[in-house]
Amino acid sequence: MRPVAVVGIGKTPFGAWPDRDIRSLTTEAIAKTLKDAHATPEQVEAFYLGNFAGPSFVGQNHLAPYVASAAGMSGIPATRFEAACASSGSAFFHAVSAVSAGMYDVALVAGVEVMTSQPTPKVAEILASAGDLNGEIRAGATFPALFAMIARRHMYEFGTTREQLAAVAVKNHAAGSKNPDAHLKKVITVEQALKGKPVADPLTIYDCSLISDGAAAVLLAPLDRVREFGGKGARILGIAQTSDHLALDQKQDITTFAAVQRAGAKAYKMAGITAKQVDFAELHDCFTIAEIIASEDLGFCERGQGGPYAEAGCTSLTGARPINTSGGLKSKGHPVGATGVAQICDIVMQLRGEAGERQVRRHSIGLAQNLGGSGATCVVTILGATA
Amino acid sequence: MRPVAVVGIGKTPFGAWPDRDIRSLTTEAIAKTLKDAHATPEQVEAFYLGNFAGPSFVGQNHLAPYVASAAGMSGIPATRFEAACASSGSAFFHAVSAVSAGMYDVALVAGVEVMTSQPTPKVAEILASAGDLNGEIRAGATFPALFAMIARRHMYEFGTTREQLAAVAVKNHAAGSKNPDAHLKKVITVEQALKGKPVADPLTIYDCSLISDGAAAVLLAPLDRVREFGGKGARILGIAQTSDHLALDQKQDITTFAAVQRAGAKAYKMAGITAKQVDFAELHDCFTIAEIIASEDLGFCERGQGGPYAEAGCTSLTGARPINTSGGLKSKGHPVGATGVAQICDIVMQLRGEAGERQVRRHSIGLAQNLGGSGATCVVTILGATA
Repeated sequence: MRPVAVVGIGKTPFGAWPDRDIRSLTTEAIAKTLKDAHATPEQVEAFYLGNFAGPSFVGQNHLAPYVASAAGMSGIPATRFEAACASSGSAFFHAVSAVSAGMYDVALVAGVEVMTSQPTPKVAEILASAGDLNGEIRAGATFPALFAMIARRHMYEFGTTREQLAAVAVKNHAAGSKNPDAHLKKVITVEQALKGKPVADPLTIYDCSLISDGAAAVLLAPLDRVREFGGKGARILGIAQTSDHLALDQKQDITTFAAVQRAGAKAYKMAGITAKQVDFAELHDCFTIAEIIASEDLGFCERGQGGPYAEAGCTSLTGARPINTSGGLKSKGHPVGATGVAQICDIVMQLRGEAGERQVRRHSIGLAQNLGGSGATCVVTILGATA
Repeated sequence: MRPVAVVGIGKTPFGAWPDRDIRSLTTEAIAKTLKDAHATPEQVEAFYLGNFAGPSFVGQNHLAPYVASAAGMSGIPATRFEAACASSGSAFFHAVSAVSAGMYDVALVAGVEVMTSQPTPKVAEILASAGDLNGEIRAGATFPALFAMIARRHMYEFGTTREQLAAVAVKNHAAGSKNPDAHLKKVITVEQALKGKPVADPLTIYDCSLISDGAAAVLLAPLDRVREFGGKGARILGIAQTSDHLALDQKQDITTFAAVQRAGAKAYKMAGITAKQVDFAELHDCFTIAEIIASEDLGFCERGQGGPYAEAGCTSLTGARPINTSGGLKSKGHPVGATGVAQICDIVMQLRGEAGERQVRRHSIGLAQNLGGSGATCVVTILGATA
């Protein structure tokens, strides 16, 4: 197993793009990525596409060759990966594994979702299909409802407050306001967040991530070929994909995600580091409570202390360990299938020192955590600067 | 890259199973596979699931952890692959690659589809989403329509006759009638096939594969561990996944599939053999014309000669090179996401000499070809007996 680098990144702005389709968004992200890596489509040996629900959102299935052929990559293995909100994290995991194993030298990974074509209740219904059909879906449980139960339990067990949830939203909006590609570039206050329209008590609209359109892509190559691609590589230090039960009622404890703990432990072990050595992270804040729990499960703070940890400012752009410097799913946006790869792009921008106004001070090691459903899939990736 | 073996196989009977869901069918196939390999769920290090359209057919997405957890494999990487009708062929390709590269020793691959829950016009619409949205789907083109155009052109170019198409159907029904797991076990005559209800001229109902429910699974391990799993392994000699444009109008020539030619050439090269050395094959007969073209693209007969080749009986159970000894998609059935892995199961049964009434005489090397859409994805696998 040889070391692998991300040698190119590219994404579309996230937002509501009624005039764009899956192919147009993905090929834009791919073209930017290839340009960033001084590479051509002909150099790509395999294509990995993360997409959650193209068939349900826009009526197109069989998406990988559909996109590959439009991007000038016809002929090569072109495969779509679906793992709910971790779809492109999973595509990335499989691509990294293949390059690391020497199956290919140059692999392209993309993620895409076009969601705003559907009215919000339909979007919620499509998203809910990543829950358990036999129990949760039939009972009408949507993801805001499931994460509201998780938040309520976390409050009961650990004293987490609505103010602490709001602190996560405020921080992520502040970071997103400095991200030119973010869906919402709006600074908010704790008071605004607390007064947000209720979605599923205790979660308000400000606790929930956005419904967005967008695409992101990265190019992978063996570490020893970074110079051929312009030399701006970021090295993959550790990576893991794990799974767990879909249904909340099958889990021992809903205030922690076993899949996240497992993926974190495996990725730390592979990287040969501990949580303490992570300078900054992109965590999967589909809901504010999810970021709080992830910061606990990944060992950034003690169990149950994710709320106070965020409220104390430790995770802001100028904090000890900035989390979601891109604005996160809350402010950057959450085009479901694009999110995992977009997180990697955001980590690489920081590692390269190219994050502009959002640039963090210490940026040697970054971690991305991509969650599927209410914790049934998790992909954790740890990246380091190559220089 | 080390040699890999299929050390266990298992599938459900194919048919219309209104009382079964995705989880129940897949866990049955997995349990049979683990039993066949004398293995336990705890030994499985990674799970690969092929499924085309679970969300559209039955409303369940995020299928890999959903199935993995029910089969006692929670925690491991569990990923869904979607590549239209080649979904589980693609899952199999990625699993073989990972084991070959040494990422895992023991990987389980399954494929599943539950289709008969929907009325036929809805099934046709869902299947059509594997075509090109911008052109074909908006124009109302279904797959029978697309393959009817292909058949018509093949007739025009090469003089292929309706009787030759019918010969494929008759042969596959004859083989399927001897397969206890086949959806249709009905012998038909050329006259019946020709008088079949028209679907899309020149294709009748007897030229079209079935709408079925079913699941199939295989267990993979390094070749040198075959004995630990009961020793009934089949060795993977060659494998390739390729892609092409989705839309027929983007292809130079619709009487041949570039993705099939490419996948065949790569797999033959990896196996170090030529088409002549293949004893028997499972080809993707979604329509009779597809089997005819595949037999040409894979070099079993000359270009344009697939019709006479089938009509002469060369591909029957007792012919020189039997094709679709399982009954094929035409008679065994075509639960889309299960088909690729089911083909592997059928090849392995022949290699082991366990195909009962369908057993072919020469069974040292078998080839499986799994096609996605109208040729935008192809996976070709060549397997050999280990003994």
